[in-house]
Amino acid sequence: MKENIKPATGRLGVLVVGVGGAVSTTLITGTLAARKGLTKAIGSITQMAKIKMKHGEEKLIKDVVPLTDLNDIAFGGWDIFPDNAYEAAQVAQVLKNSDLDLVKDELENIKPMPAAFDHNWAKRLNGTYIKQAATRWELVEQIRQDIRNFKADNQCNRVVMLWAASTEIYIPLSEEHNSLQALEKAMKENNTTVISPSMCYAYAALSEGAPFVMGAPNLCVDIPAMWELAEKTRIPIAGKDFKSGQTLMKTVLAPMFKTRMLGVSGWFSTNILGNRDGEVLDEPENFKTKEVSKLSVIDSIFEPEKYPDLYKEVYHKVRINYYPPRKDNKEAWDNIDIFGWMGYPMEIKVNFLCRDSILAAPIALDLVLFSDLALRADMYGIQTWLSFFCKSPMHDSEHEPVHDLFTQWRMVKQTIRSLVGEEAPDYLD
Amino acid sequence: MKENIKPATGRLGVLVVGVGGAVSTTLITGTLAARKGLTKAIGSITQMAKIKMKHGEEKLIKDVVPLTDLNDIAFGGWDIFPDNAYEAAQVAQVLKNSDLDLVKDELENIKPMPAAFDHNWAKRLNGTYIKQAATRWELVEQIRQDIRNFKADNQCNRVVMLWAASTEIYIPLSEEHNSLQALEKAMKENNTTVISPSMCYAYAALSEGAPFVMGAPNLCVDIPAMWELAEKTRIPIAGKDFKSGQTLMKTVLAPMFKTRMLGVSGWFSTNILGNRDGEVLDEPENFKTKEVSKLSVIDSIFEPEKYPDLYKEVYHKVRINYYPPRKDNKEAWDNIDIFGWMGYPMEIKVNFLCRDSILAAPIALDLVLFSDLALRADMYGIQTWLSFFCKSPMHDSEHEPVHDLFTQWRMVKQTIRSLVGEEAPDYLD
Amino acid sequence: MKENIKPATGRLGVLVVGVGGAVSTTLITGTLAARKGLTKAIGSITQMAKIKMKHGEEKLIKDVVPLTDLNDIAFGGWDIFPDNAYEAAQVAQVLKNSDLDLVKDELENIKPMPAAFDHNWAKRLNGTYIKQAATRWELVEQIRQDIRNFKADNQCNRVVMLWAASTEIYIPLSEEHNSLQALEKAMKENNTTVISPSMCYAYAALSEGAPFVMGAPNLCVDIPAMWELAEKTRIPIAGKDFKSGQTLMKTVLAPMFKTRMLGVSGWFSTNILGNRDGEVLDEPENFKTKEVSKLSVIDSIFEPEKYPDLYKEVYHKVRINYYPPRKDNKEAWDNIDIFGWMGYPMEIKVNFLCRDSILAAPIALDLVLFSDLALRADMYGIQTWLSFFCKSPMHDSEHEPVHDLFTQWRMVKQTIRSLVGEEAPDYLD
Amino acid sequence: MKENIKPATGRLGVLVVGVGGAVSTTLITGTLAARKGLTKAIGSITQMAKIKMKHGEEKLIKDVVPLTDLNDIAFGGWDIFPDNAYEAAQVAQVLKNSDLDLVKDELENIKPMPAAFDHNWAKRLNGTYIKQAATRWELVEQIRQDIRNFKADNQCNRVVMLWAASTEIYIPLSEEHNSLQALEKAMKENNTTVISPSMCYAYAALSEGAPFVMGAPNLCVDIPAMWELAEKTRIPIAGKDFKSGQTLMKTVLAPMFKTRMLGVSGWFSTNILGNRDGEVLDEPENFKTKEVSKLSVIDSIFEPEKYPDLYKEVYHKVRINYYPPRKDNKEAWDNIDIFGWMGYPMEIKVNFLCRDSILAAPIALDLVLFSDLALRADMYGIQTWLSFFCKSPMHDSEHEPVHDLFTQWRMVKQTIRSLVGEEAPDYLD
Repeated sequence: MKENIKPATGRLGVLVVGVGGAVSTTLITGTLAARKGLTKAIGSITQMAKIKMKHGEEKLIKDVVPLTDLNDIAFGGWDIFPDNAYEAAQVAQVLKNSDLDLVKDELENIKPMPAAFDHNWAKRLNGTYIKQAATRWELVEQIRQDIRNFKADNQCNRVVMLWAASTEIYIPLSEEHNSLQALEKAMKENNTTVISPSMCYAYAALSEGAPFVMGAPNLCVDIPAMWELAEKTRIPIAGKDFKSGQTLMKTVLAPMFKTRMLGVSGWFSTNILGNRDGEVLDEPENFKTKEVSKLSVIDSIFEPEKYPDLYKEVYHKVRINYYPPRKDNKEAWDNIDIFGWMGYPMEIKVNFLCRDSILAAPIALDLVLFSDLALRADMYGIQTWLSFFCKSPMHDSEHEPVHDLFTQWRMVKQTIRSLVGEEAPDYLD
Repeated sequence: MKENIKPATGRLGVLVVGVGGAVSTTLITGTLAARKGLTKAIGSITQMAKIKMKHGEEKLIKDVVPLTDLNDIAFGGWDIFPDNAYEAAQVAQVLKNSDLDLVKDELENIKPMPAAFDHNWAKRLNGTYIKQAATRWELVEQIRQDIRNFKADNQCNRVVMLWAASTEIYIPLSEEHNSLQALEKAMKENNTTVISPSMCYAYAALSEGAPFVMGAPNLCVDIPAMWELAEKTRIPIAGKDFKSGQTLMKTVLAPMFKTRMLGVSGWFSTNILGNRDGEVLDEPENFKTKEVSKLSVIDSIFEPEKYPDLYKEVYHKVRINYYPPRKDNKEAWDNIDIFGWMGYPMEIKVNFLCRDSILAAPIALDLVLFSDLALRADMYGIQTWLSFFCKSPMHDSEHEPVHDLFTQWRMVKQTIRSLVGEEAPDYLD
Repeated sequence: MKENIKPATGRLGVLVVGVGGAVSTTLITGTLAARKGLTKAIGSITQMAKIKMKHGEEKLIKDVVPLTDLNDIAFGGWDIFPDNAYEAAQVAQVLKNSDLDLVKDELENIKPMPAAFDHNWAKRLNGTYIKQAATRWELVEQIRQDIRNFKADNQCNRVVMLWAASTEIYIPLSEEHNSLQALEKAMKENNTTVISPSMCYAYAALSEGAPFVMGAPNLCVDIPAMWELAEKTRIPIAGKDFKSGQTLMKTVLAPMFKTRMLGVSGWFSTNILGNRDGEVLDEPENFKTKEVSKLSVIDSIFEPEKYPDLYKEVYHKVRINYYPPRKDNKEAWDNIDIFGWMGYPMEIKVNFLCRDSILAAPIALDLVLFSDLALRADMYGIQTWLSFFCKSPMHDSEHEPVHDLFTQWRMVKQTIRSLVGEEAPDYLD
Repeated sequence: MKENIKPATGRLGVLVVGVGGAVSTTLITGTLAARKGLTKAIGSITQMAKIKMKHGEEKLIKDVVPLTDLNDIAFGGWDIFPDNAYEAAQVAQVLKNSDLDLVKDELENIKPMPAAFDHNWAKRLNGTYIKQAATRWELVEQIRQDIRNFKADNQCNRVVMLWAASTEIYIPLSEEHNSLQALEKAMKENNTTVISPSMCYAYAALSEGAPFVMGAPNLCVDIPAMWELAEKTRIPIAGKDFKSGQTLMKTVLAPMFKTRMLGVSGWFSTNILGNRDGEVLDEPENFKTKEVSKLSVIDSIFEPEKYPDLYKEVYHKVRINYYPPRKDNKEAWDNIDIFGWMGYPMEIKVNFLCRDSILAAPIALDLVLFSDLALRADMYGIQTWLSFFCKSPMHDSEHEPVHDLFTQWRMVKQTIRSLVGEEAPDYLD
């Protein structure tokens, strides 16, 4: 019920890991410009989308549940370079200077705190603005102090932490990740091969009462130890891996084939991008993390075990290529081999000339605002209803993730409505 | 309730207008081969799809409601050329000879009846195997006699008529179409400018108790006069215009943009195809009919009046080009201009190398079998729940069509379930 | 021999018809910026290309023959709108404001003279800044006076006139075009159906000693009457129709197929563009002129009469679609159906996301400077050696045009070298 | 002069390494069918192309110089599987059964000899039909014996050997490759890390008086030791790496940009293919060999040192992906980032749906027949005039390869003409 949701009063600190990156600076610039009325928050569900209520009337989501107003957000965060947000945005080359200049002063005032960084986890990056700490545990302590300082300095009464930094190298789930106790022990023993920097951020956030949103495919909060911590602290966690371009398309086209009972024999996806993310992913160990995330979506949609004639041999391949000329203008090319009546083959090619950060920024904003809503509604642990925004929706060991975009969308709508005791108007909504 | 649906006993005559065309011969060959176990009916909902029941168990649709078994179908129909189905299929060049040979004898036995045809309604076609009649009304009489003969000759106890012939020229709704009485009068007066050949077929079908399926975008049954007749005779009508390739894609991509609140500034769709359909559509008057059908889908999905910032100026253009080298292997190329965060533009290109008849054949089969189900369940008039299969779903003057593929799919599932007193297992299905 | 070429001393007036259009303002801005050293004249043969001399040494073309220096150019011209070049460039939306601002003052000083315009020849345009004249002949007189005024006002000792305005409607060659006498008679009798506005400009230019360059596919100077005038006045004429994007590609790919003896069964070319040119071509009568130009290139390359097994049935179709969201960023999509060994089919799709004016501007510059060179070298009449820059290279009735880009390029090089008594170093150049 | 070329009398043995592969069986089937008049040798220069003679008349190349008639060819070869050519062709799935059946008997009679094979040089292949030999030298001896046997058994008076087998792993040039003496020593010492199986074939061919054609990018004959052997035995060698699809396109598009002085900032090329070649190239060590070959073509065309403003920073990336659904129907997708006037960027995407073996077969035939011509004309060593057919044209250490397709074509024409004392009719040919 609505009365059970705490109101969104006071200021919300949004602390971004990788605050000088392409996604972060795009998110911040657009949010600042939107709250001044200089742009629309296009692509943002929290700002623009409407849902139908019981009797068919449509309302903006933000008029249904109490979301933090954009005017009440204070941005901050960490980066491995000391540039302020205005300087960093110019390096990122996503937005035109004329757009950055709309909010130049505010951007210049956003200065990063030094980052918790470990070169071994992002081998193509060479940060210069970095915390020194004897152990991972000490890193956590420093980050916690940063959060407290930021909250105090900016008069925030709540904070959400958003990971908008790089993809870390691939690691499998290990014993140290299976319980909170084991995790803390590994942190104290400074086990740097199983404890990633992102885990330190997440641990710090949850300990300080801040929801944590994982925008990359990192293992990070996707482990039992973190679920335990989130349970204990009653804090929401959400993620992982923003579903922005190619995978967004996939979670729409795959259901189309399935719904129409068209078979699929192969799906080849390649990407070219030239931003820092592309550079990091050019390293095989980091790419592996992303690859696992990108490969997962199809199978759960196709259910080959139920439809073996159609999907038992889908050859699925995903490639990402660092290609500097493109900068942030990521481009995806997919070739899909399908077959229909009497087994005859057909082909679909999709060429998506997208802009990575333009697509990711509103997703980041929505995940932040909905995580904050969850916090105030006392919904803690994994926020499966936010799967809509993620390539690899987190889920506990007993559930399967939902990948179909439109099913995910119904999860969002249903959750919003049930928070205020409403129902869907009919089965078609 | 299931008990209220008459069982699918006895033989079902499927009378196809344009029985020698590409779609028809592909439909017939695949159906004959599938019932011999020589191929799977890929792409067919009635033959392959499963739906979830109340308690989560999944069942094949054909195990939920009583559908006519493929073995009980007898094919026949009309064509403007006298070739039997085997000869006609070779002209169509859709299927390999080795596939046609699987059911060669049966195909050779399917010989068309002479067609009701009027060159003015399909200007690029020059049929040679044509009925002579003094008036449209007399044409109707001849077709009715054909139906009765076919039923008797083939021991059918039910018949469905399927229009799989060409797109007729565009005509607006006129007074003669607004009541059954006016329609009959115009037929008797032989008003050949408002009464198309397809109307004669539809009138004959409904009068003889046969559901009528319109696979082209022709006005035909999409008029109050025909609704009146369907009501009076308690016969189902379904259509119109098979949603096979490019439009199928559109009704999936448009909801994706909408769901993600991404703006759209333009959508350019072009097609190249070289079959008889392509030839007919090379004539502007015939293309217009198709164009109207293809243009309609986007607006009702985008709801520009509710989301003016995103969709108020979508420039939508559809082109079809006759291009003989491609034969039946229709190819669509779409360019979609979208915009996101801060208004930044992005582009998506979709190149669909499809096969027109391979995609249309299972749709035709499903529409036939579901229309027959509707007849036995006493569901008459416009079958809106079959919108799933149509580019221009028919609807009465008080309703809006649903174009979103997944909403349409829920309409199918919900209708099937409600026929047997079942419910959806949950809101996610 | 070089000594026979008059030096490029003094100022060269470049009078552009359609001086406020997208191509013109892009040409002017880039030229002004290049001569200030603020940009490179990328795409320009006269400014950047080198050729090999007899002994293998490479020289910039402009160091081989005396070309007018960019610093010696004075721009002017006519337009149907009174905006100065800075204002017009902003309407055209080709160049960023930051690029226009590099030469803002100079652009603002370029103000058009009122245009000779006839709505019937460009039906989608409604100009407001237009000459009044009783006859075509009087129009010619007014334009001649404009030229003389411009020359005097700008201290030019030579002028070249460049048509960078719209495509006029299609007209066939008629008797009035067959001799100078007939042409002049038709002008005086104000025969507005055979005498286009562009003919008035061309006539005026040649009469005033100015070479005339036709950038559109208009009939204009491509008629015996104008050849006669050019002969009589000893003035060069060049054109027609800038070979910028899709056709450029065609004249390279077609020779590839030919050289490799690969067959071609179809070539489908479509374009979307949203600038004024696109708007004009949305009118069928104007499109026809362009279509004829675009369709001509393939046949002369393939020589189907010599290679009937490979090219006797090439189905070639060209479409242009006005599509405002794209503005000047013209996009072409080609599908080419080829066949190889044992007749097996293959396909090539080319998607060219080009910028119309960016590609056309350096072509315009080169045609102007080379026409001026031709004038000083006393090479008059049709400049076939400039075919390299044109979709429809002009040629007299006894010759065939050359379309192959690389053969055209050798024509350029050979002409330059022979002007200074040089030879190619070897057969491979 | 023509009189110096020995006539093409008697039978020519064409011994193919990998005779059961996709290219080989396609080559053989098409050649056999063409000589029966059942198909045209489309794509073959030797069979279809014409050249102009001094006075402008055009003649078929095969009427200008004496080429072996297709009827005089006897096919044979080696393979790592024992299937005859008919069986092997069915595995390859390039040609339809109805095409194979045209020459079924002849195909069945072509049975491979066991191959010289070393798993370490093609790690994804597991051959079962393999020669046993103590040393590389002994392998050579066995192959030489095979050649002699084949020649005797098939009454051939000449033999050409064609490598149409897999790409071997990448190796750098080493000392053992630098002189014939060192090479022979390494063979005798069985140095299997520097002596590839293909070198054994090449050595055997040259020793037996047979020209050797390298269709893959293997180092093989591209070393001083082999040049020495070819010189000593006066035998032609040709290669390497058939220029079939994507690279063919590149050597046409790159000259287009260059000729038009358009800059290039990036070129991304990806390929998907599912035949045995694709499988082999899925191994990084083998891919490296191909990558080096594919990357080399651009630079020599662009000459970045001469045009630094345009080409000094071309980011060129080539990817090959094994993708089984596609079988032999290789597909290439290229994205090319170019820039023009004032540096404005544009993009070209080329999607080439080709068929690997259909494109390669006529190239293989031409290389064989032209090598045999060279032998009879006493042109020995590297045949640079055959660069036209190769991705990595061989050249000695003092020369640069020519990559531009049209320049290569002129090399072919010029060589043919000079063999018979003819000249080009003019500089445009």
